[in-house]
Amino acid sequence: MFTLQLLGTAAGGGFPQWNCACALCDLSRRDPVRCTPRLQLQAVVRSQGRNVLLNAGPDLRVQIEATPTLQPRPENGRRNTPIDAIVLTSADLDQVLGLLLMREFQPLRVYATPLVRRVLEANSFFRMLERVPQQLTWVAMLPGEPFELLPGVTCTAIPMSDDLPYYAKSFGASAEPGQAVVGLILASEGKKVVYTPAVGQISEALYQGYAAADAIAVDGTFWSDDELQRAQPGTPLAREIGHVPMSGEDGMMAQLAKLRGPRKVFVHLNNTNPILDRQSDERKAVLAGGWEIAEDGWEL
Amino acid sequence: MFTLQLLGTAAGGGFPQWNCACALCDLSRRDPVRCTPRLQLQAVVRSQGRNVLLNAGPDLRVQIEATPTLQPRPENGRRNTPIDAIVLTSADLDQVLGLLLMREFQPLRVYATPLVRRVLEANSFFRMLERVPQQLTWVAMLPGEPFELLPGVTCTAIPMSDDLPYYAKSFGASAEPGQAVVGLILASEGKKVVYTPAVGQISEALYQGYAAADAIAVDGTFWSDDELQRAQPGTPLAREIGHVPMSGEDGMMAQLAKLRGPRKVFVHLNNTNPILDRQSDERKAVLAGGWEIAEDGWEL
Repeated sequence: MFTLQLLGTAAGGGFPQWNCACALCDLSRRDPVRCTPRLQLQAVVRSQGRNVLLNAGPDLRVQIEATPTLQPRPENGRRNTPIDAIVLTSADLDQVLGLLLMREFQPLRVYATPLVRRVLEANSFFRMLERVPQQLTWVAMLPGEPFELLPGVTCTAIPMSDDLPYYAKSFGASAEPGQAVVGLILASEGKKVVYTPAVGQISEALYQGYAAADAIAVDGTFWSDDELQRAQPGTPLAREIGHVPMSGEDGMMAQLAKLRGPRKVFVHLNNTNPILDRQSDERKAVLAGGWEIAEDGWEL
Repeated sequence: MFTLQLLGTAAGGGFPQWNCACALCDLSRRDPVRCTPRLQLQAVVRSQGRNVLLNAGPDLRVQIEATPTLQPRPENGRRNTPIDAIVLTSADLDQVLGLLLMREFQPLRVYATPLVRRVLEANSFFRMLERVPQQLTWVAMLPGEPFELLPGVTCTAIPMSDDLPYYAKSFGASAEPGQAVVGLILASEGKKVVYTPAVGQISEALYQGYAAADAIAVDGTFWSDDELQRAQPGTPLAREIGHVPMSGEDGMMAQLAKLRGPRKVFVHLNNTNPILDRQSDERKAVLAGGWEIAEDGWEL
């Protein structure tokens, strides 16, 4: 059996965002009970005292120091960590920058698709993780091929998108389809959790994965397709940057309305999403629709 | 007049460090009053409500949200920041990663030497700061040439070292000597502060800069030359990685013993430095020697 814990539930930039004084960010600074600040997305899979991080976000150092189960223990020597490995679901900066915070000559095992590995290895900053032999061990993760993540816990990547982040556009994902962004199916005897913080569309395979799960952590970045544009003209639509919005006839809630088996949990909330305000109508609609809205620290 | 505030005073990795269970890191987790946790190095120069960051460290998001004077204000529009610019003293990851956290389409002005700019612009991650026109404006900072940082506040870079960080070794600093690592002299009418978190040696020019200052923030990374090696065999000596240790006949305190004018403050404390323990003999020796040991939040 395993636990998936959410150490951060905000999208990139966190909540509030450093340069944002919108009604929501402002409210979170004035009334953190009504509109609670959130760290950037980070999850960890825990089983029998061992941990595997799902991605490595920019707030990782703070999240480790706030989570005793992720801290080193003096009885295990001067330098040690209960973190066995990291699984990367994309090469997005918000999912990989934390790796650069984990570079104190500590051996790390990183599961990534060959495409994501290629993108990151090409970046000079990652040489900081290659200073001593075996500092970084890459393990190829191929969509559809289950592997053992922790004893008794398997992980299977689901292809989600071929869109590489802006900084890596020159790579081209066509030679390795389905590897730019993946979701994860985590399974042990009697438990299945699907982790999909970025959902650009719901394929039949993804829907079937959701239907077979006990809990699903689903992309809750945006409430509506145009909310980023309304906050800042000239920015893209939600669907253009790989996120199905929650609301609307073709939104996430509508598409998954008939899914009644799993616990349905929204994660990766952008600072523009009105559900961040506990008193908003949008939040009430989400809860009334049978969804949960994750808080930092929650366990699935 | 200006204020230099220290938002973080630990060296890279912070204190405690994520994978370290040494006596000091362990003590800081058990007894944070005696051995207080510290965020990674970050400073800000403030004058008349405007701010310039000195470097941009990995903990910057947390530091901004803990510092109301650095937060956007709703009366200035949805997206805004009281941060005018960032001055980089090196291309070290611990001094630049925060720039990648400030990428929400916000125009930024960055002062850096041409060498540091060249190193960073070559890194693909920095394309995330070039998504809209004028997002990032580089201003060339040349050692020895004063420039106006804020109204009435000048800044002058002092050459400190030609050592580029490990990830950028291939660049070679020889064509642009004195540009890999710099210190900063900040001056306004009636006030002079020198900011030198990395001091590999004390040149005559640097000593004269210190002597003319009201306050100096000085490299306090290591107490002794071999403390990193004692914590983890195979790692380098303090002096090999550009840090004069505090103690010893040729240490920082000995070399600056005759300097009686300025307030002398140690910053950039590594997690191995025994002065982090308020009850240590080393800390008492530092204080008895006329030095101060900076705490997060202090103002100079």
